[in-house]
Amino acid sequence: MLLRFIPLLVILLLSFNCKAQQSADSLAIKRIFNYSLEHGKGYDWLHHLCKNIGGRLAGSPEAEKAIKYTYEVMDSIVPGNVSLQDVMVVNWKRGDKEICFSEYNKGNKETYNICALGNSIGTPVGGLIANVIELKNFDELEKSSRKDIEGKIVFFNEPMDQKYISTFNAYSGCGQIRWYGPRSAAPLGAVATINRSLTHLIDDFPHTGSTVYSDTIPKIPGAAISTLGAQNLSAALKKNPNLKLHLELNCEMLDDVSSSNVIGEIKGSLYPEEIIVVGAHIDAWGNGEGAHDDGAGCVQSIEVLNIFKSLGIVPKRTIRAVMFINEENGLRGGKTYAEQAKMKNEKHIGAIESDAGGFSPRGFFMDGDSTLVEQVKAWAPLFAPYLVHDFSQKGSGADIGGLKKHGAVVMGLLPDTQRYFDYHHAASDVYENVNRRELQLGAATMAAMVYLLSEHGITKTADNLNKYPTR
Amino acid sequence: MLLRFIPLLVILLLSFNCKAQQSADSLAIKRIFNYSLEHGKGYDWLHHLCKNIGGRLAGSPEAEKAIKYTYEVMDSIVPGNVSLQDVMVVNWKRGDKEICFSEYNKGNKETYNICALGNSIGTPVGGLIANVIELKNFDELEKSSRKDIEGKIVFFNEPMDQKYISTFNAYSGCGQIRWYGPRSAAPLGAVATINRSLTHLIDDFPHTGSTVYSDTIPKIPGAAISTLGAQNLSAALKKNPNLKLHLELNCEMLDDVSSSNVIGEIKGSLYPEEIIVVGAHIDAWGNGEGAHDDGAGCVQSIEVLNIFKSLGIVPKRTIRAVMFINEENGLRGGKTYAEQAKMKNEKHIGAIESDAGGFSPRGFFMDGDSTLVEQVKAWAPLFAPYLVHDFSQKGSGADIGGLKKHGAVVMGLLPDTQRYFDYHHAASDVYENVNRRELQLGAATMAAMVYLLSEHGITKTADNLNKYPTR
Repeated sequence: MLLRFIPLLVILLLSFNCKAQQSADSLAIKRIFNYSLEHGKGYDWLHHLCKNIGGRLAGSPEAEKAIKYTYEVMDSIVPGNVSLQDVMVVNWKRGDKEICFSEYNKGNKETYNICALGNSIGTPVGGLIANVIELKNFDELEKSSRKDIEGKIVFFNEPMDQKYISTFNAYSGCGQIRWYGPRSAAPLGAVATINRSLTHLIDDFPHTGSTVYSDTIPKIPGAAISTLGAQNLSAALKKNPNLKLHLELNCEMLDDVSSSNVIGEIKGSLYPEEIIVVGAHIDAWGNGEGAHDDGAGCVQSIEVLNIFKSLGIVPKRTIRAVMFINEENGLRGGKTYAEQAKMKNEKHIGAIESDAGGFSPRGFFMDGDSTLVEQVKAWAPLFAPYLVHDFSQKGSGADIGGLKKHGAVVMGLLPDTQRYFDYHHAASDVYENVNRRELQLGAATMAAMVYLLSEHGITKTADNLNKYPTR
Repeated sequence: MLLRFIPLLVILLLSFNCKAQQSADSLAIKRIFNYSLEHGKGYDWLHHLCKNIGGRLAGSPEAEKAIKYTYEVMDSIVPGNVSLQDVMVVNWKRGDKEICFSEYNKGNKETYNICALGNSIGTPVGGLIANVIELKNFDELEKSSRKDIEGKIVFFNEPMDQKYISTFNAYSGCGQIRWYGPRSAAPLGAVATINRSLTHLIDDFPHTGSTVYSDTIPKIPGAAISTLGAQNLSAALKKNPNLKLHLELNCEMLDDVSSSNVIGEIKGSLYPEEIIVVGAHIDAWGNGEGAHDDGAGCVQSIEVLNIFKSLGIVPKRTIRAVMFINEENGLRGGKTYAEQAKMKNEKHIGAIESDAGGFSPRGFFMDGDSTLVEQVKAWAPLFAPYLVHDFSQKGSGADIGGLKKHGAVVMGLLPDTQRYFDYHHAASDVYENVNRRELQLGAATMAAMVYLLSEHGITKTADNLNKYPTR
C-alpha cells in the first residue's frame, strides 16, 4: 500500500517546496515594494539630476556631471564596486539659435517654436529664407515631383494617431517624418524640413529627437515645430501659399569625444558569473531636464541596487546597474557595453531597461529565447498584487537589445504610456511632471524582477525553480 | 450516424453564435474607443466646467451654473430628453477667512496654509488663540486625558501610509482624523482640530473634505493643514511646546436650499424599462476647479451619451447619464435619485459611477448580487485590449450605492490611483492636471460597459448572452 503512495508523496513534497518558494518570493517582493514606496531615494536623486544638473546631451559638461553624480551615488551604495567604461560618443551641439518665423501678413511677423532635430546640420549663418510646401507624410512626398519641392522647406504636418492604446505605436507610426524627413526630402531639392512634433498634445513645446542622414544623400537641416506652431503655420499657408519662412539653426556635429558608461555592481554570492543588468541612459537632449527620458530610468536602476543593499538581500547572481551614455543620438553606450561583454565572454542571463518614462508600471516588454521568455512570464502572478499585469508586449530597450544575442532575456519596464509623449524630448520633460509614487513603483517592479532572476536563474531546462534552496 | 452528430452540431452552432456575438461586441467596443480618443468632447467640456465655472460647492452660484451647463450640453446630444430632479442640498459656506499662524519665535509670525473642513462651524469672529497638542492619530487621543486636551487645538499629524498600492486604502486608513477629528476631540475639551492633509505629497496645498458632527457632541471647528505646514508646525512645537496658534475660520452652515440632479436619457429600443445609470457628481469643494473630483466623471458620463449618439448605436435598454448634486458634503443627490427610483418602481439593472479621477482606466469596482457580478466579470476579456484588467475590487460609488438594493449591479470606474490624492479636495485639482487621453480612455471604458449591459442585459439565469439576436 505504502509504495503506491510514494509518487503522490513526492508530488506533495515538491508541491510544498514550490509553494514555500512562491511564498518566500511573495514576501521578498512585498518587502521590496514597501521599501521603495516608503524609503526609496530615487525621486530625490532625480531632483538632483534635473534641477542641479539638467540638460545632459552626450559630450556636454552636464552629461559629465551626471556621470560623476551617478558614480558617487552608486559608490555610496556599493562602495568600491562602481566603474567607468570608456565610450566614444557622438558630439553634436544644439547651438543657441532655433529661430523660425514667417512674414505672411504684410510684415506682421509670426514666430513658431522650433528646435533642431538631433544630429541635424545647421542652416547657413544668418538662416535661410524659403517657400514652404506642406505635406502630411511620406506618401505625399512620394507623389511630389522635384518641381514641387526644389528650393523649398518641406513641412511634414502629420499628427500622431490618437487611436492607438499604446502611444508607442502612434510614435512609430509617424516617426519617419522625423527620422528620415531630411534625407527623404533632400533628393528632391528641399533646402530644409520641419516636422510637426511627435506628441499627442496641442501645445507650444517643440519635441526634438534624432534624424538619420545617409552618406550618399546631401544633408539638409531638420527642425521640429510645436503642434500649436504646426497648426498656425498650416493656417498661414492656407491664407498665403507663397509665404516665406525664415529658418535659422546653428547646431553642428563635431568630432567624437570620450565619455563613459557608469556601472555599479553587487557580486552574486553563488553564481557571480551570471550577470543581470538593470539600466537606463544618462544622456538627454539638453532642451529639458530629461526627467522621464531617462532620468527616471537611471534613478530606478540605481534604486534596485539600493533596495538590495538596504534590505540586506544578498543576490545569488551578479547585479549590475548601468548608466548608458549617448543613447539618444548614437547608442554608443549600449553598443560599447555589449561589445565589451562579448570580448570578456561575460554571461548575461537577463537585462532590464527602463526607458519609457517614470509612470505607473504595467508590465514588461520581453524578448529573447522563447523558452526562457516563458519562464519569466510564469512569474507574472507574483506581480499581480502590484497591478503589473501586461507581459504580452514584444521588445526590450535600445541599450540592452544587443545582449539578446548573448543569450539574455531582455526586457523593458512597461509603464502606462498615455502621458509619455506629452513630455518626450521636449522642454516640458521636467522633474515636476514625474510623480514620486509612480517612479518608485517602477523601481520596485524592476527590483522584483531582478530578485527573481537572481534567486532562480533562468535556464533552458525549465526545471530550475526548485534547483536552489529557498532563502 | 447522423443522429450521433446532432448534439455536436448544436454545440458547434451555439459556439459559432457565441463567437459571432463576441466578435460583434469587440468591434463595437473598438469603435467606442476609437471615437472617444479621436473625437470625444469630454476634455473640452471639462475645460469649460473648470475654467469658466470652477468651484461648484453645493448651493453655490457656480454649482447652479454647472447644472445649467451640463443640462445644455446633454440637451444638445439628446434634445428634449434632459430633466432636472429637485434636490434639497446642504448649504455650507466656506467663507473667506482660513487663517492660521503662530508666533513661536519672539514675534516672528509663521503662517500655515489651511482650509476649513467641509461642514465645519467657524471660529469665533476674530479667531481663537490656543495652545496646541500634537497627536498622531486616534490611538494617541484615546490615551490622552482631559487635562492634556482641554482648551487646546488638537493637531492630528498622521501621514498617509505610502505602502498601500491602492491609494484609496491609505485614504480610508487615516481618514478618520478628518471625518471624526472634531467630534472625537470635543468631549475632552478641545477648542478646535487641525489635521494633516490627506495626500501622499509634501506640498503647501491644504486638502479639505467632510467632517462629521454628532448631535449629542459639542461642535468645534476643524481645519486641514498642508503637509508642508504640518511638518513646519510640528517642528515649531518641538522648539516651543507652549506656542500659541491663531486660528480663524468664518465658514458656516445655512439652511438647506433647493438644487438639482441633471438627468440625460436615451430610451432603450427593446427594453426601455430596464435602466442603466452612468453618473458622477457635479458639485465640488469650491477651493479648486474640481477637475478630477469630479468634473472628470461628469464629462465622462456625458461622453457615454455622446458616443452612443455619434456612432448611431441604438441601445436596447435605457441609458441615463446623471449629474448628482451634493455628493461631497451631503450625498443628497444620490439619495434623492434612489428614493425617486424606488417611488417610481423603476428597474435599474446596472449603474456605473466615475468618482476616482480622470486617470488611465484599470478596471471596475463592483458590487451587487454575486451571480450578476459574475456575469459582468465574464466580459473582462473584451476589455483586455484596452489594458482594463482589474475586476477584483469590491465597491462602487457613493451616489449609486443605493441602487444596489434595487437589484442593480453597481460599479465604479477604477482608474490608476497613484496621483488621485495629489489633487483630491485641494486647490491643485485643476484642468491642467487632467490628461486628455486618460480622461477619454475612461469615458470609453464606461461606454463599453454600458454597451454590454444594454446589449445583453443581465439576469439571474446567466444564459442571456445568446438570448437576443446579434446586431
